[in-house]
Amino acid sequence: MQFTLEDITADEVERRMAVYGPLADTVRDLIDAVIRTEVDETVVTEANARLTAVVESLRANQIDGAFGVRHTAEGIGMPWGNAVIGLRNAIAPPLQVLKHPDGLVTADFTLGAAYEGPPGCVHGGVCAMLLDHVLGQAGSADDVPCYTGTLKMRYLRPTRLGPLHAEAIITEREGRKKIVRGAISDADGETVTAEGVFIVPKDWAGVMPESARIPPR
Amino acid sequence: MQFTLEDITADEVERRMAVYGPLADTVRDLIDAVIRTEVDETVVTEANARLTAVVESLRANQIDGAFGVRHTAEGIGMPWGNAVIGLRNAIAPPLQVLKHPDGLVTADFTLGAAYEGPPGCVHGGVCAMLLDHVLGQAGSADDVPCYTGTLKMRYLRPTRLGPLHAEAIITEREGRKKIVRGAISDADGETVTAEGVFIVPKDWAGVMPESARIPPR
Repeated sequence: MQFTLEDITADEVERRMAVYGPLADTVRDLIDAVIRTEVDETVVTEANARLTAVVESLRANQIDGAFGVRHTAEGIGMPWGNAVIGLRNAIAPPLQVLKHPDGLVTADFTLGAAYEGPPGCVHGGVCAMLLDHVLGQAGSADDVPCYTGTLKMRYLRPTRLGPLHAEAIITEREGRKKIVRGAISDADGETVTAEGVFIVPKDWAGVMPESARIPPR
Repeated sequence: MQFTLEDITADEVERRMAVYGPLADTVRDLIDAVIRTEVDETVVTEANARLTAVVESLRANQIDGAFGVRHTAEGIGMPWGNAVIGLRNAIAPPLQVLKHPDGLVTADFTLGAAYEGPPGCVHGGVCAMLLDHVLGQAGSADDVPCYTGTLKMRYLRPTRLGPLHAEAIITEREGRKKIVRGAISDADGETVTAEGVFIVPKDWAGVMPESARIPPR
């Protein structure tokens, strides 16, 4: 796995965000419209032709393969292709994940028609996808890198489409393992809880903080 | 949760699939192009304006809210808004899930730039999302409905973007519980395994098959 260094300034990062962010937002809007439209077949066919032309214009100059995970020399991250948080990835809601001083990681977001599974509800797999990401962010919030070993979801009740909240935090450390717990909630409380075991790579084990047990939340 | 009956013929279902399927496929192509494009800012801005106009044309007549889960009077399913298998949902790869006579459920699919997490690799949360769906389908392959209780993923190694295979099967039954096991694999073998506990609703418990233990695979 190779991370990509892009030798650009913070201003150039801002400029690119202002160019690509709105484009991806329009595609998010389009995804929703394609699911919900009831216009005549002729309008759909014409829309398809117009979209095909736009795709062609964008592909006139493009990178090979996927976007990768890029950062500047100053350490500004540009995970813009990421399926959960990617600014340029219309599949991503995108989640905006906040890290708090106590190690808690939170995200507030709204899921619409594109994330449906059971009628009117978020697909259980989408909940799993978002929890995987939020727990992963919480797992590395102490700046000791780690990868996901196992991840267990408990589905308490259906998650209605609409405004939602996710959060996670490290609750225990044991050698090279960190236990992370988190949940997705709606206005009435938790709908899905998750527990993950995250593993610190061997060559990082020496710098693990004291194996202090953090009280479970 | 309400399922929706649409009083249409099998021919009309086919006609709609031929109208909306290609439109969503073009949007999938567009999502990829938006991640990978390197065209000039003016082309991006123009593309955004053209897409906005297409969205407007599609929204001229649309349903309220999400698509729901629809079926015809003959029992043809139209889960076209589904985030994993939805024909009309450009977020969905979409997975085509096959049910085999022995209860095994399989899907072969290719994931590109839109499903990236670590550089060149599938987002771990995307693996979780797809496994949630495939295990759920396997869990109800015996025609006894069930919902997901818990789902545990074990990440063995990174999953490279590209052609992949997923499968799942019921391995044990115990009262109202079904244990389902499955995995995602690439050409070199399994990358993520999953185990789910699925629960049969109370009013269905009477029709559960004999609590025969199926040999684990």
